[in-house]
Amino acid sequence: MVVNDFNRTLLTDLYQLTMMNGYFSQGISERKAVFELFFRTNPFSGGYCVAAGLEDVLSFVESIHFSSGDLDFIRSLGLFQPDFVDRIASLKFSGKIKAVQEGSIVFPNEPIISVSGTLLESQFLETFFLNSINFQTLIATKAARIWEASGRGTLVEFGLRRAQGVNGAITATRASFIGGCQGTTNVLAGKIFDIPLWGSMSHSWVLAFPSELEAFRAFVKVYPRNSILLVDTFDTLQEGLQNAITVGRELFGQGNSLLGIRLDSGDLTFLSQEARRMLDSSGLPNVKIVASNSLNEWIIETLKHQGALIDIWGVGTNLVTGGNESSLGGVYKLVSVEGADGKMHPKMKISQNIEKITLPGEKNVFRIFDSNNFMIADYITLGDEPLPTSFPFKIHHPQIEHKFSRMESPHRLEPILVEVFKDGHRIFPESTLKSIQARTISELDKLHPSHRRLTNPHTYKVGLSQRLWELKQSQIEETVGSLS
Amino acid sequence: MVVNDFNRTLLTDLYQLTMMNGYFSQGISERKAVFELFFRTNPFSGGYCVAAGLEDVLSFVESIHFSSGDLDFIRSLGLFQPDFVDRIASLKFSGKIKAVQEGSIVFPNEPIISVSGTLLESQFLETFFLNSINFQTLIATKAARIWEASGRGTLVEFGLRRAQGVNGAITATRASFIGGCQGTTNVLAGKIFDIPLWGSMSHSWVLAFPSELEAFRAFVKVYPRNSILLVDTFDTLQEGLQNAITVGRELFGQGNSLLGIRLDSGDLTFLSQEARRMLDSSGLPNVKIVASNSLNEWIIETLKHQGALIDIWGVGTNLVTGGNESSLGGVYKLVSVEGADGKMHPKMKISQNIEKITLPGEKNVFRIFDSNNFMIADYITLGDEPLPTSFPFKIHHPQIEHKFSRMESPHRLEPILVEVFKDGHRIFPESTLKSIQARTISELDKLHPSHRRLTNPHTYKVGLSQRLWELKQSQIEETVGSLS
Repeated sequence: MVVNDFNRTLLTDLYQLTMMNGYFSQGISERKAVFELFFRTNPFSGGYCVAAGLEDVLSFVESIHFSSGDLDFIRSLGLFQPDFVDRIASLKFSGKIKAVQEGSIVFPNEPIISVSGTLLESQFLETFFLNSINFQTLIATKAARIWEASGRGTLVEFGLRRAQGVNGAITATRASFIGGCQGTTNVLAGKIFDIPLWGSMSHSWVLAFPSELEAFRAFVKVYPRNSILLVDTFDTLQEGLQNAITVGRELFGQGNSLLGIRLDSGDLTFLSQEARRMLDSSGLPNVKIVASNSLNEWIIETLKHQGALIDIWGVGTNLVTGGNESSLGGVYKLVSVEGADGKMHPKMKISQNIEKITLPGEKNVFRIFDSNNFMIADYITLGDEPLPTSFPFKIHHPQIEHKFSRMESPHRLEPILVEVFKDGHRIFPESTLKSIQARTISELDKLHPSHRRLTNPHTYKVGLSQRLWELKQSQIEETVGSLS
Repeated sequence: MVVNDFNRTLLTDLYQLTMMNGYFSQGISERKAVFELFFRTNPFSGGYCVAAGLEDVLSFVESIHFSSGDLDFIRSLGLFQPDFVDRIASLKFSGKIKAVQEGSIVFPNEPIISVSGTLLESQFLETFFLNSINFQTLIATKAARIWEASGRGTLVEFGLRRAQGVNGAITATRASFIGGCQGTTNVLAGKIFDIPLWGSMSHSWVLAFPSELEAFRAFVKVYPRNSILLVDTFDTLQEGLQNAITVGRELFGQGNSLLGIRLDSGDLTFLSQEARRMLDSSGLPNVKIVASNSLNEWIIETLKHQGALIDIWGVGTNLVTGGNESSLGGVYKLVSVEGADGKMHPKMKISQNIEKITLPGEKNVFRIFDSNNFMIADYITLGDEPLPTSFPFKIHHPQIEHKFSRMESPHRLEPILVEVFKDGHRIFPESTLKSIQARTISELDKLHPSHRRLTNPHTYKVGLSQRLWELKQSQIEETVGSLS
């Protein structure tokens, strides 16, 4: 059973429906509300995220529709009033959405999507939004890290066999491309997203023939100009590479060429250096060396430092699942809601875990650039707040009460949130995947290398305006006051 | 864009198609071949896996069909002969498949699926089989571990917002149920698989009202018999729990009852003990305590040891993604192929990484039970090999040449692979999810607790028959001989 466009409206947590029914029965479901989506820490001990998943979010909002079968199922749960089920039969989103574009560099604690609509419809969006943004941002970020570790080399995603489900694979392939991959082995994803397809051979090809040499000869006969031969079925240097060189020279003699050899086990630094030496000394300097075998950004960085001579990196499992960090903890929180008085009331959660405290009120985010076009800090303001006119100005630490930085007169200050939905209509067009990847690369260029370091990066500053900080403090005092 | 039944045939790695085209052009595509699916190590440092994913695999094989759009796309790649594309236009699986049933306990190095068909059609199945089995087995195993850690308590899956994509979520919900979950928050999965739905409330409900007490009162008014109140929006003990008790007592006075309270932050041992004490002393001993917040099997085991008083465990991220281990490394390997002589030739990969060496030949697996009905070892034989008649008999270590164990006369010996496809037709009916879960539980009961320990479990023995061991040794010698 797989999910398709027709039933994903039901892909929600039960509590969204119970809360919506509750708002409805309390007569407050049509009040205005603002929710914001943000995450609290960068994954992989890194210094940034690459935003991804917006396209799925927008197409979901456009296509919200409970089928009559969905509505029957909801009724059958016995939890909901009949007029509530009638209400959601025509559920549409009527409000406004602002979001960072896919391929944007983003940081913890800043809103990357802001939703303004009725309480009913905005609450409903939470589950799908988080499912899309959390996973795709995680994978685009992982891809960018791996691509950077490879020295911005040629990176091919081949995780389909280890991905988390069929959509997990498709979605991961798209997000990997956003983060810097140049190709995939996933045929369906290649078709859907127009991503270049790559492939070599598996051990079964070699084993299907009486000998490795016969297997290689048979393969290049079929693909005389684009064969990548897998050389580790028996013994990489003694047998596989020797056979590949034999076949490569035969091809060369026929006016064709071997595209590459693939190493899939053993010491990749040593084997790639030996393979390069043997290929070069056999008159095959153009044959590429492809490496795979549970690679990730840290292994690739080490291999590069040790002088591995690898032209193409094939990364599967760790890229499409995130490896040892398999989720991004993005959340979607109510920050403002209309009261019985018709006015908007800023809201925040005050947790005993300091990092779970949220920031009240509808917000904007401005990115501050220096004169070298490097981004130096993100500045979170309240929605209607004017930008600072006197310098230096303070930006407050998002969690620690007394910590702040001074910002000198910035070279440039840019809003990062773009209006994508207005009055219930999508106003942001679909971007090509190539243009989204280009955005990622251009944004990475504007991020100082110290923030892009794989481990222990310099922390990028995200801070609150004076007014937002004051609102937060006053809300905390009010609550603490009510407790005493 | 999501995957549906109509296009998942194209969800394959490019190299499957290039190899299939290669077999076809070499005139060997219709030769018989046997592939086996197995994994090399248990995930999570554990002692076993719970097999899952077979139903998706079977429905995939039944529905293989390239659409004309798929075929056009394949032609457009410029890699394939026209008559090959015509051949796969009518691709069907015509052979035999044996597999372990979902909910079976399985171990490293033994085949859990065996495919016998033509080289062309069997090669094609690899990608989808691995995508389904790897992910679903990983998650069913994780669920079983978490369920065991909770003392086989009440475990609810709520990972939808952090799952890897939309199908990732649906698939994970199903696999979680197989492993022991009693419910999910995922409405669509509940509808599709008839899994009980659970839900409480989020912080946004509390924040949408002027005060927490008003929010709780409003909620129980709508759900007077099945409310679970989230008590950590401001201060768990000082405020949340006090308000929940107020509302619980009001409900009680009306002849209704509060179902539970949910703790989602802070020290869950301390808070649950305090909450239990406060609820009990307020005349609310039946109100359940639900806990969530990045739980996994190790945290739950610690909480239980420390005396946490938690009735219902809500587990999300770490359950549906596998947490810090996000993939199972299952592989699908050619073990036997028909030669030009019309005979089947056993095949194996001889890697420099000892753990990547495969076992040659079509195999069977028998499970050996002792007189207490505990499984004590799995015995891998060659397909046509008679079972041992004299005792004790040797079972050989799958990797280390000179290591073996002696098996006394077994109480019982059972084959674990069941024929599910015969002559291209599915002969194994779809099981209900409840019966699959019942199988998991009954199999866990037959696995000695020492193998079920979360960390450093006693290693379960999987061994080779004498004939299989001899075949393996002779193939290695042959290859090493050819290298010298």
